[in-house]
Amino acid sequence: MTGTNSARTPLAGLAPAQILETLLLAADAAARETLPRFRSPLAVENKLADGFDPVTEADKQAEIAVRALISSRYPDHGLIGEEWDPKLSDNPCQWIIDPIDGTRAFISGVPVWGTLIGFMVNGAAEAGLMAQPFTGETYLGLPGRTVYRRGEEEIVLRTSAVTDLERAKLSTTTPDLFVQTGTERPWNALRSRVLQTRYGLDCYAYCLLAAGYIDLVVEPGLKNVDIAPLVPIITNAGGVVTTWDGGAPEEGGNCIAAATPELHAAAMAVLRAG
Amino acid sequence: MTGTNSARTPLAGLAPAQILETLLLAADAAARETLPRFRSPLAVENKLADGFDPVTEADKQAEIAVRALISSRYPDHGLIGEEWDPKLSDNPCQWIIDPIDGTRAFISGVPVWGTLIGFMVNGAAEAGLMAQPFTGETYLGLPGRTVYRRGEEEIVLRTSAVTDLERAKLSTTTPDLFVQTGTERPWNALRSRVLQTRYGLDCYAYCLLAAGYIDLVVEPGLKNVDIAPLVPIITNAGGVVTTWDGGAPEEGGNCIAAATPELHAAAMAVLRAG
Repeated sequence: MTGTNSARTPLAGLAPAQILETLLLAADAAARETLPRFRSPLAVENKLADGFDPVTEADKQAEIAVRALISSRYPDHGLIGEEWDPKLSDNPCQWIIDPIDGTRAFISGVPVWGTLIGFMVNGAAEAGLMAQPFTGETYLGLPGRTVYRRGEEEIVLRTSAVTDLERAKLSTTTPDLFVQTGTERPWNALRSRVLQTRYGLDCYAYCLLAAGYIDLVVEPGLKNVDIAPLVPIITNAGGVVTTWDGGAPEEGGNCIAAATPELHAAAMAVLRAG
Repeated sequence: MTGTNSARTPLAGLAPAQILETLLLAADAAARETLPRFRSPLAVENKLADGFDPVTEADKQAEIAVRALISSRYPDHGLIGEEWDPKLSDNPCQWIIDPIDGTRAFISGVPVWGTLIGFMVNGAAEAGLMAQPFTGETYLGLPGRTVYRRGEEEIVLRTSAVTDLERAKLSTTTPDLFVQTGTERPWNALRSRVLQTRYGLDCYAYCLLAAGYIDLVVEPGLKNVDIAPLVPIITNAGGVVTTWDGGAPEEGGNCIAAATPELHAAAMAVLRAG
């Protein structure tokens, strides 16, 4: 599924401005469903029989809105979302959607959840957006640049220059996931080496990595919708993101994002040895 | 130091509107120092020789600004802050200031830090403010009511009605602190009983508890400046906050805040047994 794009035209030859506009309009459509329901009484359903995985009406309605917007502009593209069945297509272009990444943050009133929308060509993420409508932040990854927008403000983002673990600020959503996935040893090996560890950020952590404030994000057991839309945000800001075995991250799994190739290599060495 | 106020005039007889205005003006003065430095290159100093405890210029300048504002209005009141020596006074009224609670969130670009300012009478916190200037949120605890303000929006807050641990959303800033303080066993006993655990929120967690989105916050080893300003926000919204041995929380230590007295009692029982 995953290809490299060096020899091809970016974005399957589609106009970057059209892809950008689609991402922004889709995010607006999602925000109209999510924001009015944020910090409101929510009907929380139980997605997993054996655990607590809240799915809100906001999640479902936001994905419907995003899919409708994209389908109206690109009716022959594929669609992959978190809440509804994929729309399959022979077209190499595919959109990947997590309407609310960080559902638990959402139901706890914490504005670090985000709407994730990615554009993939032959399985490789080439453009992506994270939008946090409560804070008004949008992070956009497009070929050659990652941009932060808030109100009138627009900033081109660069990852930090940190290359050593000892200077690195590390983040993961919860250490409990490493216990649940049997990856506690490499995680503990890594966090014992870094400057500080920050929890609780979901997709927001990868955006703060793109912006240079966090240097390393490591998470186990991600779904494709959790990470694929963030890949262009990370890589076009200068960062590196792979699975723990060095593969392309678009399919999910155990993932690592780093501010620099050197930091990525140093963290990978610790994860492998751990 | 700690007294009960049931038999006395609230706020030592000072006008509530004047205390409120002082809190808001002091928060504005702090924001002028913190917000321009948030997500900017920071000169991070090393406060502890044997660890990483960043103190930013923002911290120091914000506390200077808050102290100057309060002193100009109440020259004979005491002042306790995080960064500078206390200003002692024989007056029973004292202000307690944490210019940036959540310094690590601040340097990681995460908008869950806050400026905390509390007003104490004979050691008991009677009014308090948490301000998050990036999101534009202000949480105000005053005798009889807790209020949330953002732009034109003003909402009177109530804690949730959750009484059972099994339905409770629990938060703590980092589980590592329990390991460092030798309180891992009671912590693990408690979190194994709750619906979900959320990390990484600093002072923001207590405000989300006051707002009804989080039901339980448990933290070890707090300083007085970390918790005293939050006490009126929690209690005037209907919550309960004490130390783990049931004492007044204004002096810090191991603290627990709960949405209801029943939930507080249930969590205390688990902490004691653990």
